[in-house]
Amino acid sequence: MKYASETVERAIHELSKLPGIGRKTAQRHVFFLLKQSEENVRQLAESLLELKSKVIHCSVCYNITEDDPCRICASDKRDRSIICVVEEASDILALEKTGEYNGLYHVLGGALSPLDGIGPDDLRLKELLRRLTGVKEIIIATNPNTEGEATALYISKLVKPLDVKVSRIARGIPVGADLEYADETTLARALQGRLEY
Amino acid sequence: MKYASETVERAIHELSKLPGIGRKTAQRHVFFLLKQSEENVRQLAESLLELKSKVIHCSVCYNITEDDPCRICASDKRDRSIICVVEEASDILALEKTGEYNGLYHVLGGALSPLDGIGPDDLRLKELLRRLTGVKEIIIATNPNTEGEATALYISKLVKPLDVKVSRIARGIPVGADLEYADETTLARALQGRLEY
Repeated sequence: MKYASETVERAIHELSKLPGIGRKTAQRHVFFLLKQSEENVRQLAESLLELKSKVIHCSVCYNITEDDPCRICASDKRDRSIICVVEEASDILALEKTGEYNGLYHVLGGALSPLDGIGPDDLRLKELLRRLTGVKEIIIATNPNTEGEATALYISKLVKPLDVKVSRIARGIPVGADLEYADETTLARALQGRLEY
Repeated sequence: MKYASETVERAIHELSKLPGIGRKTAQRHVFFLLKQSEENVRQLAESLLELKSKVIHCSVCYNITEDDPCRICASDKRDRSIICVVEEASDILALEKTGEYNGLYHVLGGALSPLDGIGPDDLRLKELLRRLTGVKEIIIATNPNTEGEATALYISKLVKPLDVKVSRIARGIPVGADLEYADETTLARALQGRLEY
């Protein structure tokens, strides 16, 4: 069953392409937007168009940015001897929020996943290797799942022979979690990665 | 913590105004859109803009439509002696899906809610009364919550003296549900509204 208005149908169709948005949610959004002022809807539409016209990838680290190089790469307050490797640009914000890290970043653009046909050539690995001059450490912060771990291993094998220290972010019990409910793999990792007082 | 790119921040801000979309989900949408082609994002943005430029309210029943009057009001196959009163235009599709109803509709534009400052003058009640010539029955299909029930009662008191039959959609156990898990109010309604075989 569809709406008589093709415009409404088209908006529902377009919105339901967004991740995690089904037809019902898209319908709800459309009826919400129909009640908004034209100005408000225009602002939303324009902000989406600007995403593609203004936001680019930093030519050094491939973070999203409006200026090239990005603020992190251009900053003289960051430690240029250390690069943190992440899968996606969105991971950078999560790491920046910790306030624990003051080095540079490198966005791979994904993780190795043979099943999805994503091999080493599809990631920005050559671009990473080109940046290693003067770099003392590479921290690999790919996701702690099969693809992320495989990617981490691959990068470590690639970078280690070049006399650069390679580390991987710790996997263990999340802060605030209950030991009782932790899964075995995470608990095993937490034991393996234990730190001395 | 915010993104260095103001365009990204603006898009997140605009998207998180949608109902049920928080900052995290909006962030996810933005990163999804950044990966889409410019053409795809343009299509989404344009479909939203068209919502406000093309979609209007039917001047008879206040359903959403692109032509005035709407297809239902203009159709000569619908029973013009019966009007189903709903809160929102989105309710019409749900009723049309049943295939059980062949009359006209009337969209109130909400329900009575003194706490939110929505009184009888804020609903399209005068417009409903003006449509009653030749109408034999009004089916009130407002939501089965406090506001919807109050609105139904209000309309019934308004319309009954005008010699028009007024009915209310049945409240009871939803089809496929478990009696065991039904709440008391619904079960009480189901008993009150029992039908003879």
